[in-house]
Amino acid sequence: MPEIINANGARVLADLNTLRAIGAHKSGVHKPTFSEAHMRSLEWLVARLPDAGLSATIDGIGNVLGTSAKAGPKLLAGSHLESQNYAGWLDGPLGVVYALEAARVLNPASSVKGAVEVASWCDEEGHFGSFLGSRSFVGGVTEADIDAARDRNADRSMREALNSVGLAGRARLAVERGRHIGYLEAHIEQGDRLETSGLKIGIVTSIVGIWQYRITFTGEQNHAGTTRMAIRKDAGLAMAKFCVAIDQDFPAVCGPRTVWTTGRMALDPGAPSIIPGRAEMLFQIRDDDPAVIARLEDSLRTMATEVSRNGPCSVAVERLRTGAPARMDARFQDAIEAAAKACADGKSVRMPSAAGHDAQVLATVMPSAMLFVPSIGGVSHHWTENTADADIVTGAEVFVETCRRLLSD
Amino acid sequence: MPEIINANGARVLADLNTLRAIGAHKSGVHKPTFSEAHMRSLEWLVARLPDAGLSATIDGIGNVLGTSAKAGPKLLAGSHLESQNYAGWLDGPLGVVYALEAARVLNPASSVKGAVEVASWCDEEGHFGSFLGSRSFVGGVTEADIDAARDRNADRSMREALNSVGLAGRARLAVERGRHIGYLEAHIEQGDRLETSGLKIGIVTSIVGIWQYRITFTGEQNHAGTTRMAIRKDAGLAMAKFCVAIDQDFPAVCGPRTVWTTGRMALDPGAPSIIPGRAEMLFQIRDDDPAVIARLEDSLRTMATEVSRNGPCSVAVERLRTGAPARMDARFQDAIEAAAKACADGKSVRMPSAAGHDAQVLATVMPSAMLFVPSIGGVSHHWTENTADADIVTGAEVFVETCRRLLSD
Repeated sequence: MPEIINANGARVLADLNTLRAIGAHKSGVHKPTFSEAHMRSLEWLVARLPDAGLSATIDGIGNVLGTSAKAGPKLLAGSHLESQNYAGWLDGPLGVVYALEAARVLNPASSVKGAVEVASWCDEEGHFGSFLGSRSFVGGVTEADIDAARDRNADRSMREALNSVGLAGRARLAVERGRHIGYLEAHIEQGDRLETSGLKIGIVTSIVGIWQYRITFTGEQNHAGTTRMAIRKDAGLAMAKFCVAIDQDFPAVCGPRTVWTTGRMALDPGAPSIIPGRAEMLFQIRDDDPAVIARLEDSLRTMATEVSRNGPCSVAVERLRTGAPARMDARFQDAIEAAAKACADGKSVRMPSAAGHDAQVLATVMPSAMLFVPSIGGVSHHWTENTADADIVTGAEVFVETCRRLLSD
Repeated sequence: MPEIINANGARVLADLNTLRAIGAHKSGVHKPTFSEAHMRSLEWLVARLPDAGLSATIDGIGNVLGTSAKAGPKLLAGSHLESQNYAGWLDGPLGVVYALEAARVLNPASSVKGAVEVASWCDEEGHFGSFLGSRSFVGGVTEADIDAARDRNADRSMREALNSVGLAGRARLAVERGRHIGYLEAHIEQGDRLETSGLKIGIVTSIVGIWQYRITFTGEQNHAGTTRMAIRKDAGLAMAKFCVAIDQDFPAVCGPRTVWTTGRMALDPGAPSIIPGRAEMLFQIRDDDPAVIARLEDSLRTMATEVSRNGPCSVAVERLRTGAPARMDARFQDAIEAAAKACADGKSVRMPSAAGHDAQVLATVMPSAMLFVPSIGGVSHHWTENTADADIVTGAEVFVETCRRLLSD
């Protein structure tokens, strides 16, 4: 059995706390994409990479990629450094620091063939779009896409933001086909499954697909005083009834881990004295089984047809986004499991990821995998998000050992 | 029995069509407050008033008041000349032209004591606020209120708008207590009651009060992927259920003419991938019986308490606006009824107004009344709004005769 090359747990914790101090907000951070705190975090990473024998710059969309001149196989590893607004300190940085640590301990080791290369993907949190950084790397973002992207936090375009942080005009890094044996990403679970079952490592089997719909209700705009209740065609009320019907009908047809969410509702014209003639909701379904999604979408369309037939409002269901689940590589999953056996008493479980991650984008061009560490109370996208220090260190050890095994295969 | 002094129906129709041609939109008009079309309409009115022995200017908030130097009692009559966006030609102008016609035929008549004075109240349609013109006239608008008012159609303040139309710095007209025996306003019904019962004149008994509420739902914002359905506290779903519960419970406790409307709904943060932690709806109830409103508000608060107790979200009901119904003057109502007997074969009915009007503001300082003419199909706040020419003429005859009777009493 080969030697175990250990992660330096104290160094991993120190690095994560250094990143937490940049853009600190209470016990978390506020680092929207291209904020000063985000840029300083990227520069911190670029300055650390030479310690791992890697050289890097920040590219034209804010991605960082540390590349190695060492011979042999290359494993790509990373995550992201920007945060949701006023959110947690580990969502993103954990995976970047694990990758950095793996590169630091494995790349100089003579017993290890090849090297770990470290990436920080820009804007995983979607301040400007959907996975723009990793999608740019795999060739999925055009210049026109960047022209069109806008900052959801401020009235500015992505071009203006890139210009203000000095990245405008820089080339964008693109994947070099065949260079990497695959991609590995660590992340906090963002749920409570590991914690409630006393486990330390989640081995991600797939990243659930996100199906998104715009559901539009059409009634008749009218005066909120003079129009009798009996003759109203209130699109807002139709929408409320539809939400309640989904809540009642979906549990009977969904899968064991399906989730669905109405994240936005709007009435038109949205004035207190006008009966809304039009209403719109954004509705999302997530599952790792396309058959379950197909069943739920059927149910949604049947409900819409029925409501339209019965009146007084009509309903239209429009699919905005189809998210085929991203399967994680089987061999990589086995490597994580073996590493968890060696470094975490085998306290691991295979599970789907209900959240989206850059690994789903990388999976379109190379074998990819993810491992999770426990989230205290399952809290995510909030500044109270946390993971016990001991669990962070265990996760780092499993991550480094996984990388070692993958490079040795 | 005194002679009947007739309205000139052809002149009334011609005047209304002249006003329709200013700012025409399809068969209706587009005359937001302080638009070029609105200002030209006010200037048209100012130019017509001398024909009725009245002199007038436009005041510092866009009100027009034509005053008479004739001895004897003065009856105030009018309505408004701006419109909702892309709306009907009669909503407002009908009442102004009827008042102008009454002044034209009655003021010169030696058999008539006193005079009709004509008003056009600015911004009844609420582009900048709530009844700012008539409220200014009765002393209910401060300079600070005007400082704060903004154009709901454009990014500009009311001060900027007043300046751009040359009204900035002009004095505002104020009611002269004791000058008028009362206020009379004609308007289209904006409902279908007169039309469906074959009647020609609605005698308004009261203008319904508008009670407005902000209902806020507090749950827990969380990740739309990683948060299991069973542990969610979805504020948006709680709001939808509340709307449906109102729809189910209110019919059993409401009055025969109560109406209620949810005109605005919003989710916070309103992102497709985040379970809303907070939701808010604007809810309005209209009735002319405060006892009915009290019953409905009780029901609303009971429902909220129950929902909060059962969880998972809490509900807060906050009353934003209390609208005591405005009672129309009994003697004035009798005068309208007598005039309808004389000029409209008695085809009149007493009814509350479910829409708000300047008469409710004038009613706070003098006896006030309103008469309605039929609306074809009950359509309102839309460019297809209309009334048959014959009904417009009948209404004018009843209006003039009502004024004559009130001045003769």
